[in-house]
Amino acid sequence: MTDNILSLNLATTRQQWGFAQAVDGCLRHGVTAISPWRDQVAAIGLSEAVSIVRANNLRVTGLCRGGMFPADSTEGRQRNVDDNLRAIDEAAALNADCLVLVVGGLPGSSKDIAAARGMVLDGIAAMLPHAEASGVKLAIEPLHPMYAADRACVNTIDQALDMAEQLGANVGIAIDVYHVWWDPKLPEAIARAGRMNRIFAHHICDWLVPTRDLLLDRGMMGDGVIDLKAIRALIEQAGYHGPQEVEIFSAENWWKRPGDEVVETCLQRFRTVC
Amino acid sequence: MTDNILSLNLATTRQQWGFAQAVDGCLRHGVTAISPWRDQVAAIGLSEAVSIVRANNLRVTGLCRGGMFPADSTEGRQRNVDDNLRAIDEAAALNADCLVLVVGGLPGSSKDIAAARGMVLDGIAAMLPHAEASGVKLAIEPLHPMYAADRACVNTIDQALDMAEQLGANVGIAIDVYHVWWDPKLPEAIARAGRMNRIFAHHICDWLVPTRDLLLDRGMMGDGVIDLKAIRALIEQAGYHGPQEVEIFSAENWWKRPGDEVVETCLQRFRTVC
Repeated sequence: MTDNILSLNLATTRQQWGFAQAVDGCLRHGVTAISPWRDQVAAIGLSEAVSIVRANNLRVTGLCRGGMFPADSTEGRQRNVDDNLRAIDEAAALNADCLVLVVGGLPGSSKDIAAARGMVLDGIAAMLPHAEASGVKLAIEPLHPMYAADRACVNTIDQALDMAEQLGANVGIAIDVYHVWWDPKLPEAIARAGRMNRIFAHHICDWLVPTRDLLLDRGMMGDGVIDLKAIRALIEQAGYHGPQEVEIFSAENWWKRPGDEVVETCLQRFRTVC
Repeated sequence: MTDNILSLNLATTRQQWGFAQAVDGCLRHGVTAISPWRDQVAAIGLSEAVSIVRANNLRVTGLCRGGMFPADSTEGRQRNVDDNLRAIDEAAALNADCLVLVVGGLPGSSKDIAAARGMVLDGIAAMLPHAEASGVKLAIEPLHPMYAADRACVNTIDQALDMAEQLGANVGIAIDVYHVWWDPKLPEAIARAGRMNRIFAHHICDWLVPTRDLLLDRGMMGDGVIDLKAIRALIEQAGYHGPQEVEIFSAENWWKRPGDEVVETCLQRFRTVC
């Protein structure tokens, strides 16, 4: 059995569509799985978002995002945990497959990345009981090392799995090809994630050459250098056959095109290069 | 015994100074170690560069750079090896501590990074006999994963050490903090490099937040988030007590300042934050 369908991460059409518009756009093209961001849900209101999801029988492949645990004070770290507890409630209401965790980088003026990583582990541990009680899986998303300072100090699948191992079966990973495609240990790491049953999500886009901006220059699948089919094969060999979630931040290209064109292109590429 | 001195990688003042000017600038500030780039040597002529090095009793901590092995044809790969043989001759003439290898990325339109890595291994193997006969050590420089596609498909210390292990004692690594600071396995990887006796060079600069350009926005030591003293301690614990080579590509900042100011600042930061 497979549900290898395309899911649209709503960041992909962030500049064009709000939550309701994005759902309408997806449905026009037969896309029945989405992954919204919390600010998009907040803009329409959680209960309205939940109504739309239910009325259209949508699959929510993830809620983006929890995380951002490190802070340079105890109070700051507690505020971050509190915000993650609210994110769990939102993910539960939306019946999301997982809450995606972008774990955060170095707090304040710190240069101690090991300490930041410790704060991440502590932060996830602090939110974990509520996640388990709420039936919400937590997916650590290892981010590309170029984000280690300011967005996520978890930068490889193996590192995320080491954390998941310590935290328990409710904590797994989101594998985004953009972040991990370069990893010389990628086949082994994906296989290990499969053995641990911890692949909770598979995100796709592409790495452009050249890449003109560290954050907002992701490519459409097929326009870059990532061997998407090969990575999908590794993920399926590891036992994950779920949706592929398209997440493209593209300030100068895809965010400037009509949302329908973006979704059409995603579907066309999904059929041909993923 | 330590020779923990500052070496100036001449890319740091590339926009201000040619080879001879850079040497003059270094000597004005008491810097007696340099690492030139091949184009800078070619511009003045190898024999003149060698004369300047000898006349001033300079230490050459590395020659930048060999590498760039992958190509999409057998002929292309052979041309790359041939160029590396010439680089060995230049490194030998300059009595450089090592020839730094930036290994290259995906050739042509390839998406097969494993194949590119195989070409790197083959390329180094092909140049190795001449390097050994010439007394030139080869230092693979793992580059940050954001360069995996277009500059270097060797992206972690461990990956470089795996290659060095296959190739023999004449092949080691150059540890540039910019490329490796984020690695969750950094302490273990540096310790392994030490046990293998393969640390041939230590490069320094800093990672800025935000980083505005993937290639040309490196920071001066102390202006970013890298814990330089902590990494130096790991490197010394691993048995390497040699020079710290400053290599800063900075199109919008340090390349626009007078060379003397750059060298002075390097020395001041070297004394305080490295």
